[in-house]
Amino acid sequence: MLTDLGKRARLASRTLARLTTTQKNTALHNLAEALIADQQAILTANAQDVESGKANGLSDSLIDRLMLNESRLADIADSLRIVANLPDPVGEVFDESTQPNGLRIRKQRVPLGVIGVIYEARPNVTVDVAGLALKSGNAVILRGGSETLNSNRALIASLHRALVQSGVPTDVIQFIDSPDRALVLELLHLRDYVDMIIPRGGAGLHEFCRDNSKIPVITGGIGICHLFVDDTADQDAAVKIIHNAKTQRPSVCNALDTILVHHSIANEFLPKVVEYLAASGVTFHAEPIAMSMLQHTSVSSAGDKDFDTEWLSLVLGIKVVKGLDEAIDHIAAHSTAHSDGILTNTDEHAQRFITEVDSAAVYVNASTRFTDGTELGLGAEVAISTQRLHARGPMALRELTTYKWVIVGDNHVRQ
Amino acid sequence: MLTDLGKRARLASRTLARLTTTQKNTALHNLAEALIADQQAILTANAQDVESGKANGLSDSLIDRLMLNESRLADIADSLRIVANLPDPVGEVFDESTQPNGLRIRKQRVPLGVIGVIYEARPNVTVDVAGLALKSGNAVILRGGSETLNSNRALIASLHRALVQSGVPTDVIQFIDSPDRALVLELLHLRDYVDMIIPRGGAGLHEFCRDNSKIPVITGGIGICHLFVDDTADQDAAVKIIHNAKTQRPSVCNALDTILVHHSIANEFLPKVVEYLAASGVTFHAEPIAMSMLQHTSVSSAGDKDFDTEWLSLVLGIKVVKGLDEAIDHIAAHSTAHSDGILTNTDEHAQRFITEVDSAAVYVNASTRFTDGTELGLGAEVAISTQRLHARGPMALRELTTYKWVIVGDNHVRQ
Repeated sequence: MLTDLGKRARLASRTLARLTTTQKNTALHNLAEALIADQQAILTANAQDVESGKANGLSDSLIDRLMLNESRLADIADSLRIVANLPDPVGEVFDESTQPNGLRIRKQRVPLGVIGVIYEARPNVTVDVAGLALKSGNAVILRGGSETLNSNRALIASLHRALVQSGVPTDVIQFIDSPDRALVLELLHLRDYVDMIIPRGGAGLHEFCRDNSKIPVITGGIGICHLFVDDTADQDAAVKIIHNAKTQRPSVCNALDTILVHHSIANEFLPKVVEYLAASGVTFHAEPIAMSMLQHTSVSSAGDKDFDTEWLSLVLGIKVVKGLDEAIDHIAAHSTAHSDGILTNTDEHAQRFITEVDSAAVYVNASTRFTDGTELGLGAEVAISTQRLHARGPMALRELTTYKWVIVGDNHVRQ
Repeated sequence: MLTDLGKRARLASRTLARLTTTQKNTALHNLAEALIADQQAILTANAQDVESGKANGLSDSLIDRLMLNESRLADIADSLRIVANLPDPVGEVFDESTQPNGLRIRKQRVPLGVIGVIYEARPNVTVDVAGLALKSGNAVILRGGSETLNSNRALIASLHRALVQSGVPTDVIQFIDSPDRALVLELLHLRDYVDMIIPRGGAGLHEFCRDNSKIPVITGGIGICHLFVDDTADQDAAVKIIHNAKTQRPSVCNALDTILVHHSIANEFLPKVVEYLAASGVTFHAEPIAMSMLQHTSVSSAGDKDFDTEWLSLVLGIKVVKGLDEAIDHIAAHSTAHSDGILTNTDEHAQRFITEVDSAAVYVNASTRFTDGTELGLGAEVAISTQRLHARGPMALRELTTYKWVIVGDNHVRQ
């Protein structure tokens, strides 16, 4: 069933790849306007999804992710306008050179082609991903969660109307309009028509895609994140950074999971950090040494798997370490290579941490919460990769492109 | 069985990632010297493989790929010295910026980690790949063809001696010392310990890796390559470029497979190109229109699948096209997106060809034979990718790296 959809996406991607930046930006503005114009239909459809979700016993946090309202829809439309204002990566020339034989060589960015995105409850992903794909010249095949089917249908109908108005083939935004889970597997096997799969969701979804896909998968979004508090750290600042990294948005992948504290300051520092964060509702899982230094109702003993758990909630693991080496070893053993940092005033330790910790984002004296496309200057974000090929960390427009080599000669032949 | 080998490679890769450029270059020179010092043992082992290969009825061309001699071994050793002289990609800093909030951001190149390479008859691949992996800070797991087992054992023994002498863990160059084909599948499933799989061989091997790997695979090396001869092409130069692209080394992936000739010059041009190339032993498969313009014993009618065949021999497909549009459409339908070119003096056509033909290497007025790491200025080559993610076209040292984001703050927290 998906083959036809894949073929049409592939064909449309060739047209899309040739659109000018102005044409793409005009289309993005039209998409944004259409969402506002179709607000009534979209919110009505979304209310149906919310109602079914509640009836089906979805958790409050899932209902919150699912729910749209006027203000959220306005934000979603605005995000399309922001993408319109970002630089177009397509056509960008780099690595130019002239070889000794006179051959003129350059690389030139081109769209990847067709991107398959598999995601869960959030309807904003439908629009965000469609916008980023359009700007980077890629057709997209969207597979949202069944719990958002009505919302997505309404959003896609609105986006398609705006594409028609913009003279862009509607096939550039394809939507798998069925809750049948077998179609996910079919999408993962659509190798001739899809160039990249981006899963957006929990560890289970990423695992399923990695295990079953015949198409390259961007895995990521799972962050067991660490901060190491060195003996020379500014302790007051460290408490605030840890508070920010843990509590500012605990449910996301760049939220902090474990602090590693230098033993020589642990006695002094741990009670401070526990008191400050406990006031925000944080509870702590401490290994024995840390446990022995803490008497606080919010602290309990860490279990076997605690240091391999992404908490996604107001829980923080605490471990006392002998120093930098043990911190680096602990991170190598337990990190998902998403975001890890050191808080220190010892330059040499900062340098060693940067060199030896091999995570997508390595921090010195900052909160891990900055691992985000917008915060790191990309202007947007389609995923955070924790894999090593193609792109690592926040991915936005440029990461949705590849390049071709362009070689211009004067009738050159190889010797 | 391979789990232990994978673990050791992963562990050794951490040490290797921290070596200085000087340490790595010294090791590369030691590897080169060891190969020369161990020449006797290597050539003796290779002679055994050649003898078994002949007894097992390997083709002359396979025997030629397999065979080493003093001069070939000296070339292989030299290739290590060339790699030592190339710039080290590890540690390279790019995309530096300071955000408005003062956060200092950069990307820094790091090794991929562990690379699995699966290849066929050529023993030189063992050394080439080991050298490029070492320079780029990657451990490597090598799986050569069973027909080269003795040669590879001798080469690996020599390389390991040189690693010991250089103070580099021998585990950075791992070798699967068994002809058991089940181990290839096991390697493709070693997801926790291998970051990238590079198949080097025919279409069957690439297909097998793509179908069975749980690890990202660099596919490529299959080239159905085209040259379009436009009506304004310099016809004498075109004949020579086509001759070069077809005959200089017909057995490789960047050799020419099909020429597409503008109808308005076909009557004049086709007899010239056929006569010139036939003198070098080329035979031609022509579609009906081209066929009607040619009376030459070396020309026969093209069969159904001919334009989807990578010839790897002195066969050339010929098709007359109405013009640029039909040429681009034919290439979109039949190319493997490896190397395709236009021969023209019409700038507008050259520009359209560059924009609309989406191959890894797109040529204007040059032979397709330049798609090669050394010819395009990379100094070496580990593979030619025809996939779209991570790297496209010739891959060398930089393409064996990824990057980390380094974010340095002054106790920054996210607002």
